[in-house]
Amino acid sequence: MSDDLLHLSQPRAGVVQVTLNDPARFNALGGDMLEQLIATFKTLAADESLRAVVLAGNGKAFCAGHNLKEMAAHPDMQWYQALFAQCSRLMLAIHHLPVPVIAKVQGIATAAGCQLVAQCDLAVASQEARFAVSGIQYGLFCSTPSVPLVRNVPLKKAMEMLVTGAFISAQEALQAGLLNRVVPADELEQGVDALLDAIVSKPRISLARGKELLYAQKNMGIEAAYQLAAQTMAINMMDDAAQEGAQAFVQKRAPHWS
Amino acid sequence: MSDDLLHLSQPRAGVVQVTLNDPARFNALGGDMLEQLIATFKTLAADESLRAVVLAGNGKAFCAGHNLKEMAAHPDMQWYQALFAQCSRLMLAIHHLPVPVIAKVQGIATAAGCQLVAQCDLAVASQEARFAVSGIQYGLFCSTPSVPLVRNVPLKKAMEMLVTGAFISAQEALQAGLLNRVVPADELEQGVDALLDAIVSKPRISLARGKELLYAQKNMGIEAAYQLAAQTMAINMMDDAAQEGAQAFVQKRAPHWS
Amino acid sequence: MSDDLLHLSQPRAGVVQVTLNDPARFNALGGDMLEQLIATFKTLAADESLRAVVLAGNGKAFCAGHNLKEMAAHPDMQWYQALFAQCSRLMLAIHHLPVPVIAKVQGIATAAGCQLVAQCDLAVASQEARFAVSGIQYGLFCSTPSVPLVRNVPLKKAMEMLVTGAFISAQEALQAGLLNRVVPADELEQGVDALLDAIVSKPRISLARGKELLYAQKNMGIEAAYQLAAQTMAINMMDDAAQEGAQAFVQKRAPHWS
Repeated sequence: MSDDLLHLSQPRAGVVQVTLNDPARFNALGGDMLEQLIATFKTLAADESLRAVVLAGNGKAFCAGHNLKEMAAHPDMQWYQALFAQCSRLMLAIHHLPVPVIAKVQGIATAAGCQLVAQCDLAVASQEARFAVSGIQYGLFCSTPSVPLVRNVPLKKAMEMLVTGAFISAQEALQAGLLNRVVPADELEQGVDALLDAIVSKPRISLARGKELLYAQKNMGIEAAYQLAAQTMAINMMDDAAQEGAQAFVQKRAPHWS
Repeated sequence: MSDDLLHLSQPRAGVVQVTLNDPARFNALGGDMLEQLIATFKTLAADESLRAVVLAGNGKAFCAGHNLKEMAAHPDMQWYQALFAQCSRLMLAIHHLPVPVIAKVQGIATAAGCQLVAQCDLAVASQEARFAVSGIQYGLFCSTPSVPLVRNVPLKKAMEMLVTGAFISAQEALQAGLLNRVVPADELEQGVDALLDAIVSKPRISLARGKELLYAQKNMGIEAAYQLAAQTMAINMMDDAAQEGAQAFVQKRAPHWS
Repeated sequence: MSDDLLHLSQPRAGVVQVTLNDPARFNALGGDMLEQLIATFKTLAADESLRAVVLAGNGKAFCAGHNLKEMAAHPDMQWYQALFAQCSRLMLAIHHLPVPVIAKVQGIATAAGCQLVAQCDLAVASQEARFAVSGIQYGLFCSTPSVPLVRNVPLKKAMEMLVTGAFISAQEALQAGLLNRVVPADELEQGVDALLDAIVSKPRISLARGKELLYAQKNMGIEAAYQLAAQTMAINMMDDAAQEGAQAFVQKRAPHWS
């Protein structure tokens, strides 16, 4: 697939890296790119061997968002509705993937590119990366990017980014909650590896139940949240993985998970 | 209007500054002040030339909140209900104004004065400003101020401020998410100007659609949020402003917006 | 009660400290410990003299969460459901207690122990304390701990802690919003005292109305939130405590509260 818009690789067992590979167009999310990403995430969702997905970009940009040239050529409400619905399907595919998706950000991430970072479960960036929800510069408020942005970043910070369209540095993005870690540009690989080290050893069923539960309970009233969480945890405790984990704890040994 | 409780000015095209002008009473939100503010925001909401509103205060205090002397003189449930309903109408008028409202905070902001800062979409403060939700000092928990406070500030920080009533510095308020920027006292004008520079050049329709969408989708489930945001963005893309923006992008020129 | 799993003390008028006192088991939340805590919080809820509760731990750990040995011995869905429901009842008892509950964290707080810290209204920790939601290490995602965690900590930080199970330092926990204050190990007492100083002087009715309102309005739409907050504030203003506070303000004296 390496001559395609996406490059897939397997840096280690249990991990697939999906690399946006259209550097000439700053990895813009045109219709073809979106379709390939959605198909890829659909395949990944069914891969029982997976523990984590890394989403990366080739070239100077991580992702520059939608293809504005393509959009300028189609001044048509239905075309725009289809585009933003398609883009939202990709974001929801990341949201619903049963294992953590880690954004690995080496360059600028703008508009729907910044949205991708916000939508990923975790994010590591080079200290040279920069972030903006810049649609307002062209009269197009970044409405869909605002969905994951405001779920990660304090309200006034999100508002400032959205109405100014200005860039923030990786360090600012870290402090705002958009990133988990910022590393020197030449240590991006290791930065992501450190997170992967801590995740790939965990049982898939526990990651899957947990990711789904976290997002599901987040906006519930606290009584309903506790009810769902307690039920999820009891079900999780009956999984072979947790039974083996508990036995390993009692026997003071490492758990043996397939 | 400058001999009134409010002073209105137009620091530049597209911007109105509303200055609380009752320094002898620390710009307290008495019934008259609230009524004038609500009327002013109603007028501003209909002004199609607006891109941003600045809310400022004259004197040592930005705003000291409700007029406790007035409240002490009316130990009457209906009077209190009317007062807090009136105050909430002002806050919702800021929330629903179609363009960003920027708090410009030069002095102390306490109780409903701190609420005003939290309720504004953006906030810039002098490093000498201080903030407290201090009603609990008088046995009156700052319930209505807690509404925008907890939507801007981490939960335990909001709780601490509310049950202690203690002041925090501008720097702490910045770190907590209550402010966008803190500047030296004699650079407050420039601090607000820098934000305005980035906002007044944007089309009003895009700011208006975006501000409404951001607040509307914030507490929705993520599927519903994406559905509303995608629809809003398609509608926004059909606006003349966004079509012109997209053409400007393709033609590598600045957009021409009226 | 000092030879029991809990040690109760009264460091000053209006304050009860509940100390987890099973250091040999790192204050694990076994069934007996949970039952005693629930009973204790039920009693405290009815104590009209209370202004704050401090929740502390004896020994090296603040609390190591559930008793995994006990859990390993009962591979039974109903047993697990009962356990997590019981634990959630404790958490909701803290949530609904009419006065602030302050976690006083001297050592490690893991899994449901970290949840206790997150669930408390306020938290002060020794700089040597460390925090983890570590269940995933044993294949058990910390689902119930994720309920208060994600209500206190930015989303990606919560996700990272939950899928890695890794420890964070007290300083990181402070920056993430899990704590209000971090102090040197030998100043933990004074750190909690400073918070208590600011709380115990406040009227109980105002603390009770406020804590309930803050949590109740937090996830409402903003109009509904303002309606509830305005009504709560009017009721609060009619309380003797607030009337006395307002008179004290007018007369420039300290309020006299029983």
